[in-house]
Amino acid sequence: MAEPSFDVVGIGNAIVDVLAHAADAFLASEGLTKGAMTLIDAGAAKDLYEKIGPAVECSGGSAANTIAALASLGGKGAFVGKVHDDQLGEVFRHDIRALGVAFDTPPDDLGPPTATCLILVTPDAQRTMQTFLGACVTLGPKDIDEGLIAASRVTYLEGYLWDPPLAKQAIVKAAKAAHAAGRMVSLSLSDPFCVDRHRAEFLDLVNHHVDILFANEREIMSLYRVGSFDESLQAVRGHCKIAALTRSEKGSVVVAGDEIHVIDAERVPRVVDTTGAGDAYAAGFLFGITAGRDVAVSARIGSIAAAEVIAHLGARPETSLKALIEKRFG
Amino acid sequence: MAEPSFDVVGIGNAIVDVLAHAADAFLASEGLTKGAMTLIDAGAAKDLYEKIGPAVECSGGSAANTIAALASLGGKGAFVGKVHDDQLGEVFRHDIRALGVAFDTPPDDLGPPTATCLILVTPDAQRTMQTFLGACVTLGPKDIDEGLIAASRVTYLEGYLWDPPLAKQAIVKAAKAAHAAGRMVSLSLSDPFCVDRHRAEFLDLVNHHVDILFANEREIMSLYRVGSFDESLQAVRGHCKIAALTRSEKGSVVVAGDEIHVIDAERVPRVVDTTGAGDAYAAGFLFGITAGRDVAVSARIGSIAAAEVIAHLGARPETSLKALIEKRFG
Repeated sequence: MAEPSFDVVGIGNAIVDVLAHAADAFLASEGLTKGAMTLIDAGAAKDLYEKIGPAVECSGGSAANTIAALASLGGKGAFVGKVHDDQLGEVFRHDIRALGVAFDTPPDDLGPPTATCLILVTPDAQRTMQTFLGACVTLGPKDIDEGLIAASRVTYLEGYLWDPPLAKQAIVKAAKAAHAAGRMVSLSLSDPFCVDRHRAEFLDLVNHHVDILFANEREIMSLYRVGSFDESLQAVRGHCKIAALTRSEKGSVVVAGDEIHVIDAERVPRVVDTTGAGDAYAAGFLFGITAGRDVAVSARIGSIAAAEVIAHLGARPETSLKALIEKRFG
Repeated sequence: MAEPSFDVVGIGNAIVDVLAHAADAFLASEGLTKGAMTLIDAGAAKDLYEKIGPAVECSGGSAANTIAALASLGGKGAFVGKVHDDQLGEVFRHDIRALGVAFDTPPDDLGPPTATCLILVTPDAQRTMQTFLGACVTLGPKDIDEGLIAASRVTYLEGYLWDPPLAKQAIVKAAKAAHAAGRMVSLSLSDPFCVDRHRAEFLDLVNHHVDILFANEREIMSLYRVGSFDESLQAVRGHCKIAALTRSEKGSVVVAGDEIHVIDAERVPRVVDTTGAGDAYAAGFLFGITAGRDVAVSARIGSIAAAEVIAHLGARPETSLKALIEKRFG
């Protein structure tokens, strides 16, 4: 088998984030579900945008953020996702390619505009996301290059991909190609409400197709419909090779066969915006694993990457994660 | 005379900033003039964008930043500037209106896209700007509503406006309308190279039409072609009612008739990005003047506003300047 060209290929929704500060009272008055990702249509996105304060625009998307952070760590990444041929699509394309990530999914020139996610950051640094999927709804099997999948150590899928209608066929094609080539498949559960929408499919995936699972506490509890973190931990044991479960300031717990590691969170002087914390953790973990590190060190790299991202506004690293890791691990 | 509806109406180039970190070596290899604003065409903008790292997008434009900061201070502002009917035009429109600023210049639906400014921030926090004027070149006299000008205490013009070809006629119309209504006209010299391009016109304006002049040290020295700050200070005395001259960490010097005030800069724990420092200073100064404060207090408000803006990436305030000022002046 040829040496893989990429450490990780991410498949996900290609989104430009629109970040603004907001008060809790605003979330309440708009009926927004704090901390969650909610899908909205073009009209609702326009209406909400009219009401929010001045914003900044940054490239986002869960798996895309992970691949961006992986590249910042020095890993070799590729990304598959659909933008429109418009100004925000160009922003997305530029930002991910500027990190050295291979991104060759052709943009749509017909159909809806590039996806945007209105992210409201409350004073407690929590983020509440309203996503208009735009061009992401056209991602389909034709966009999956089996050669690219076979050339990547890990194929990483975001749970949010189960929302756009055609993407499921793309996922199935990608997962099959990965396993046929002897590669690993990784899944992030993305959001507890997303788990609610697709629980049966996620359970089937975790039981039969996923090698490395990422979930936060609320997501893994939602997957197994249990009332405590420990119950979800016991439920996931044995169902996939590795499960990396994140718990915000409580750190993370990694289950890998018989091994269980409980890893502390990195200390952050001031948490500014938690957007992208899980994405960055997954990047650090996958960077470690694909570089041959053990799961405990990989989890620590994940924690360091997450700590960088939550210390500023926006989901992608602002400093070189490679330099941060070298300082810590040499 | 009716009570003015606005404290300041700004007329300027309506621009979306694209901010990225860059090394000094990159500026050198691209032949960019560090610290300056250079005009580039669509092709050069595309080429440079391909070469820079991941970026964030924020609304910018010099006079627009000033009006945004004025609004953040609690002042009543209006803005006149031209965007295209595209995604970045919508970003610009949203961000300035979200601050309560009146912005009713109709967007173009033909012609070039919304202007962008590629801003490269070097490790010393200096910014180097490459501007593609895009839709700004279509701003003309038809966009000047004399009623709006007459309803504003101050009409504020950015020197950069002398670059797009039709805007001069708009400026003349606006300045005449302001003085006919007994209002003040204010000008910012914007950039030393911009002063080089338009020196004769700027001198005529300063001598005959400008009530409040803003310039930094390099700009005012360029205007009078002198070798020291003090020579430029002596040269400008008596030529306009008020000149507010900024000197970065040395603070500012304000000349108003016989009065001269030397105001210290505010201390900033860490300067991150100097983009918009002068724009914010002008906002604070004009906020003070239009609220009936004396020139020395107005300059201090300018310094406080500038200090907020240089402590983070991007040219517009991230926190309420009103709250900052109230803490200081009650």
